[in-house]
Amino acid sequence: MTTVEIARNVTRIDRPLAQIAANIDALFEQVLVLPADPSARLLEAMRHAAIGGGKRLRPLLACASADLFAVPRSMSLSAGLAVECIHVHSLIHDDLPCMDDDDLRRGKPTVHVAFDEATAVLAGDSLLALAFEILANPATHPSAEVRTELVKDLARAAGAYGMAGGQMLDLLPPQQAADMEAIARLQRLKTGALIGWSVECGAVLGRAGTDERLSLRGYAQNLGLAFQIADDLLDVSGVPSSVGKRLRKDEAQGKATFVTLLGEERARRQAEILVEQAVEHLHTFGQAAELLAAIARFAITRDR
Amino acid sequence: MTTVEIARNVTRIDRPLAQIAANIDALFEQVLVLPADPSARLLEAMRHAAIGGGKRLRPLLACASADLFAVPRSMSLSAGLAVECIHVHSLIHDDLPCMDDDDLRRGKPTVHVAFDEATAVLAGDSLLALAFEILANPATHPSAEVRTELVKDLARAAGAYGMAGGQMLDLLPPQQAADMEAIARLQRLKTGALIGWSVECGAVLGRAGTDERLSLRGYAQNLGLAFQIADDLLDVSGVPSSVGKRLRKDEAQGKATFVTLLGEERARRQAEILVEQAVEHLHTFGQAAELLAAIARFAITRDR
Repeated sequence: MTTVEIARNVTRIDRPLAQIAANIDALFEQVLVLPADPSARLLEAMRHAAIGGGKRLRPLLACASADLFAVPRSMSLSAGLAVECIHVHSLIHDDLPCMDDDDLRRGKPTVHVAFDEATAVLAGDSLLALAFEILANPATHPSAEVRTELVKDLARAAGAYGMAGGQMLDLLPPQQAADMEAIARLQRLKTGALIGWSVECGAVLGRAGTDERLSLRGYAQNLGLAFQIADDLLDVSGVPSSVGKRLRKDEAQGKATFVTLLGEERARRQAEILVEQAVEHLHTFGQAAELLAAIARFAITRDR
Repeated sequence: MTTVEIARNVTRIDRPLAQIAANIDALFEQVLVLPADPSARLLEAMRHAAIGGGKRLRPLLACASADLFAVPRSMSLSAGLAVECIHVHSLIHDDLPCMDDDDLRRGKPTVHVAFDEATAVLAGDSLLALAFEILANPATHPSAEVRTELVKDLARAAGAYGMAGGQMLDLLPPQQAADMEAIARLQRLKTGALIGWSVECGAVLGRAGTDERLSLRGYAQNLGLAFQIADDLLDVSGVPSSVGKRLRKDEAQGKATFVTLLGEERARRQAEILVEQAVEHLHTFGQAAELLAAIARFAITRDR
């Protein structure tokens, strides 16, 4: 991949990202309605975290994979909204003083800073519940079988055997002898489970065959790892004003990451190889998977 | 109702409560399996909070109402397990230092005391997600339509327009002129939504008609209020060793409750009236609803 090709890819992904971001913001406006009583504070906190920020990578993945099976955009956006609820939920709770203790997220004060800790706990909880309310709604898919499959898989991906389990691993004192396998395992749980659901939900919505779903799973696994390495690299060499959160945290906390283990240059090369492998899984879909391929390339060239 | 009748009712409910508690503990043992890596700490925290404690009132309500429609006990227990996951989730997060800051729950140290705050946040999150994984599982009901309806309603009851919204109201500074309506509204959200779901899920599992569902809703609304008044009374005059949590909190925090507003004697009488009204809603079911009636009477005679 030459620099010119990469530049072209980055351009190609900017428009879909902006479009999905606008759609997701509009949907959040619809579902996060302020009640006419003092509990409105909770909805304000949810809106603060959910609206007007974030790359919306997971909803884009959901829509791009659903496009392969000609799923109406309203359905894939609904699934994308659900997974974004879970993602925002995890960011709010991750930022709490008892977790990562961050005061900046997506360029804005974190929820416990803008509101207070208790409100942040409840806002995260409410967004987690909201994800399942959205998925269970017939607007997500006319088939209740499809909707319950999405609920079951997303609940698993978000919980103790998925994202939350990964966060638990991430909070434990750094291991003496953390190796690639341990770091990859943490990533598979902490960020991989949700990215995997985002990509596979297109196959579920489109009632795709097992082979197609497995191809997408392979793509998602490679993408997830590449994405994490890119994140680790951004933590080391990113520009805070463009990344929108506090950087150099891994080093300060003595955490083992792909970058501390491999060094910047080998980590960058590893991410490129993973993206190539991710794209190879898409061959079965031909030209139709161009957007998914572009997303994978974007994952390692982004500056935020 | 004479004292002898009340005593008889208390006896009649003890056995079903003990049976459901044993069933729920056994089911928690099945779903909360320790993984073979350090994230096992998260599962240990979930097990600490979920197993071996609590009245299991919500699962009992689910089973008792499902019994009206001859729903297999395995299904109503599964629904009961899901709502108990949400209940335990809310207790863990409510007990956090940034919320009620409690160190004792169900006679044991709270999760953030026995583990740490971050683990408590994640354990609560994971139990919330687990509830929906359980409901979406075909073991809960063979019909995916029924399962998605249960998911949709429980997500709504747990979230910003239900329990979490009620917790938000409860955290706000006490209102200058809190009246009965404001306190009842808080209760309807904070505890009523989950009790309502527990009672109505029997009708959903049994595909009952609208009239039967509305009767159960009326029962649940009166029961929820009565239960809250009994809780307020326990906070004032309960014995900590039997209640299993810190008492006299409402007074210390200057919170308006049914008891501060009505006084103990009128509050007690109000709870009795509500129980009578709850039981009246059950007439349409005849003798079959005896257990639900006994639960309502138990709600105001319990000592924990």
